[in-house]
Amino acid sequence: MLSKTSIPKYEKIMRYIKEKISNGEWPIGSKIPSQRQLAKEFNVNRSTVITALEELIADGLLEAQTGVGTIVTNNTWNLLSSSLNWNTHVEAGMLKQSRSTVQEINNSESQQQFIQLSKGELSSDMFPLQKMKDIINKVSNHITPFGYEEPRGYLPLRKAVSAYLHKMNVNVSPSSILIVSGALQALQLVSIGLLQKGSTILLEKPSYLYSLRIFQSAGINLTGMPLAHEGLLAQHLEHVKKKRKEAVLYTNPCFHNPTGTLMSEKRRKSIIETCTKHQIPIIEDDIYRELWFEKAPPLPLKSLDQTGHVLYVGSLSKTLTPGLRIGWIAAPEPVINRLADIKMQIDYGSSSLSQRVAAEWFQSGLYVEHVKKVRENLLERKNVALKLIKQHLEGLATWEEPQGGFFIWIHLLSPISMKSLYARARTQGIILNPGHIYHEQSSRYIRLSYAYASMQDLEIGIRKLGLLIRSLS
Amino acid sequence: MLSKTSIPKYEKIMRYIKEKISNGEWPIGSKIPSQRQLAKEFNVNRSTVITALEELIADGLLEAQTGVGTIVTNNTWNLLSSSLNWNTHVEAGMLKQSRSTVQEINNSESQQQFIQLSKGELSSDMFPLQKMKDIINKVSNHITPFGYEEPRGYLPLRKAVSAYLHKMNVNVSPSSILIVSGALQALQLVSIGLLQKGSTILLEKPSYLYSLRIFQSAGINLTGMPLAHEGLLAQHLEHVKKKRKEAVLYTNPCFHNPTGTLMSEKRRKSIIETCTKHQIPIIEDDIYRELWFEKAPPLPLKSLDQTGHVLYVGSLSKTLTPGLRIGWIAAPEPVINRLADIKMQIDYGSSSLSQRVAAEWFQSGLYVEHVKKVRENLLERKNVALKLIKQHLEGLATWEEPQGGFFIWIHLLSPISMKSLYARARTQGIILNPGHIYHEQSSRYIRLSYAYASMQDLEIGIRKLGLLIRSLS
Ligand SMILES: Cc1ncc(COP(=O)(O)O)c(C=O)c1O
Ligand SMILES: Cc1ncc(COP(=O)(O)O)c(C=O)c1O
Repeated sequence: MLSKTSIPKYEKIMRYIKEKISNGEWPIGSKIPSQRQLAKEFNVNRSTVITALEELIADGLLEAQTGVGTIVTNNTWNLLSSSLNWNTHVEAGMLKQSRSTVQEINNSESQQQFIQLSKGELSSDMFPLQKMKDIINKVSNHITPFGYEEPRGYLPLRKAVSAYLHKMNVNVSPSSILIVSGALQALQLVSIGLLQKGSTILLEKPSYLYSLRIFQSAGINLTGMPLAHEGLLAQHLEHVKKKRKEAVLYTNPCFHNPTGTLMSEKRRKSIIETCTKHQIPIIEDDIYRELWFEKAPPLPLKSLDQTGHVLYVGSLSKTLTPGLRIGWIAAPEPVINRLADIKMQIDYGSSSLSQRVAAEWFQSGLYVEHVKKVRENLLERKNVALKLIKQHLEGLATWEEPQGGFFIWIHLLSPISMKSLYARARTQGIILNPGHIYHEQSSRYIRLSYAYASMQDLEIGIRKLGLLIRSLS
Repeated sequence: MLSKTSIPKYEKIMRYIKEKISNGEWPIGSKIPSQRQLAKEFNVNRSTVITALEELIADGLLEAQTGVGTIVTNNTWNLLSSSLNWNTHVEAGMLKQSRSTVQEINNSESQQQFIQLSKGELSSDMFPLQKMKDIINKVSNHITPFGYEEPRGYLPLRKAVSAYLHKMNVNVSPSSILIVSGALQALQLVSIGLLQKGSTILLEKPSYLYSLRIFQSAGINLTGMPLAHEGLLAQHLEHVKKKRKEAVLYTNPCFHNPTGTLMSEKRRKSIIETCTKHQIPIIEDDIYRELWFEKAPPLPLKSLDQTGHVLYVGSLSKTLTPGLRIGWIAAPEPVINRLADIKMQIDYGSSSLSQRVAAEWFQSGLYVEHVKKVRENLLERKNVALKLIKQHLEGLATWEEPQGGFFIWIHLLSPISMKSLYARARTQGIILNPGHIYHEQSSRYIRLSYAYASMQDLEIGIRKLGLLIRSLS
């Protein structure tokens, strides 16, 4: 876009903006990037940007609106034609916008310059590059023409997932499995396929689900229940269920996002009993299960389920890579058929290539091998992070030692403005995940991920975090 | 599942059913497969199946309900416990079930034994197997660790799509492009992200959109407009718009699904003018554009759009393979940002692997080369299909010669029961796409695809179709 001739710099900026406007990318009514951003992008002083904008304002193309920014008010070619205001549509639609913090975090997570203490993703050190290459090459060498898959997904992958689930006592055949594009899509399918407007999801408080808008947008109530040391308590469930008849339980029993909690075997049994007794279907989101440190977690709720109450969700995102976008749902066949039909209605199935590569990871046995390594690496990172936290946050916060997963849930002892903490950390190049994303009552918490940042970044990030908290207390 | 020991056959069937019930795959209230299906699956006489079912009925596990079939009424382990009835949930949910014909077609399309005159997909002859292997290997050899992508999608792919769109005079930069998992997902994102309950989509009648439930489920009205020889007429638009204020136009101007119609240049200009004048946003679904026979279609509506009215949708599904699940949206930046946020809410982006492979198809120049071959092959198929149709359907139906795309829209001259035609064809191993899926007024039409079936199957299928129509007239 940026030509490299000798035209003045402000002129280059003007041309760039004009092109954006004239080709309809920045329609009338849209806000253009800030002066700061433009200055950075063109590597010029802010005064150069101001010169360019003033010219365009004089041309009648832009307008400066106080408190809003610079807005497109017209376009060169078509000064007379009326122009569409997409803005009304951008604000319409059933699905609400993500919280602005969430949007900002989503955008920042792909920017290399930040120290990511927020990211729920394995560090690229743990990416099994050579094995991935070998597997992709193998898949490619054996590949036959592929097209739309059958509604439930690629059969060899469903078979592999079925075999894999058997090992954790979840006995479902391939016909009771649906392949999805990650666990998030599983939740999306449930929200539009199985839950009615006005129904209730019972869930841990805080919970990953609170960070999503899909359920609220579908008119579903989220009713949080206290999350105790060893996971949800059945008696809370019983209590809440009395008031809500159309209720479904969503739980993340292994190394819970964001708190890291592991549900004990005893709790699991009583949850299953209570849910069976009160006819409460369960969505078990078990995507962190394999990431244990000392000892494997108790078997899934689904393995205790003899009446088809549990819809079990898994994914390769946290153990291998989220880039394949492969997850699965295991549930009673009528439920799977319904969800498969919905998946056909929204995207005609997941990538055939990803499905083949995922199947090969399982079939080759390399998946199990890889996950073992990830566990070891994560354990080391957890130990480093805990040491640093102890060193820099003692007296400022409390936390619990996680037994697996990605996260330490840090409770700040004095009430400081999280907004300021988040913003200042960002200015210093650190991305944090403030607790209120996961529940409004968690505003004194930070979710710290030790899975992604380099050891060096963990060190810098946690040290700076300590200083920041101190300066704000 | 089926053990190969010497236990009696009916016993095997019983064990199989018990296992399905006990592991919760077939929960209480669900219907088990028909006697015919079970007999086929176990390769036994129907009487053997009946023996097994009678035993299970006596055990209190199953119940035969007249007019419904055999229903699970209990399960072995847990005769006392109450059991969850997922059925209420299966019928709940915002998104309606697909029509049963659509579900049946979706399921049949992955079954090899049928002659598929329905399938909107390229035959596997046209799958560029060697090139695909080469590209996957190349991607694999250069791959670096991949994870969640940035919200709009993998930048090199967006750049490649931007360059590709420039060639058709659609001048959008990578920041105005969103990568999606196929064109269907583009429509899904629009339905939940940009359109409000109660708003209206103006569209061709018939239209692909009528075959989807996503818009109706979101409470959006579909208002069909007559589809003339050269595409939509602007005056119809003007007329309808008066009555509907929140209206958006959805159009499929190149080799329209299901009719094959190509919108002329003149019509395009007047559509753009009218939509600009009346502030009607346009969703241009252009996924068949490249599949022309004699001459390339007029430039996209989007290329005529100077005010950001057009949201342009493309995909690799019809030209390369739907298995990659890669498509794109080009639209004004605020619209793209909104849709990217929604995509992050529903599936965190498309497969990184598919995105890399798609980017390589473009960058290597192999895509353009491949599409050229597809065009030649499709032209040949179209000629064969037309010859056969002429031979077997003359006097029974009328049709127009398509100028590109996959479909011939066959109008039956006498009113026969399409339900019977569809069912009898199916019994004879032929899957047809009845017109009413695309609009209720199209009940005297069949959409015949010449893209998928082998030449031999086209021959058999069309001949049998002729005989069937004759026998039903
Ligand atoms: C508890 C939980 N469920 C689901 C997801 C979504 O994962 P996926 O990448 O498989 O869609 C996440 C990711 O952050 C998560 O933490
Ligand atoms: C007009 C039209 N739009 C969209 C689609 C969906 O295609 P994709 O595989 O890219 O999601 C189809 C497929 O049948 C179609 O015919």
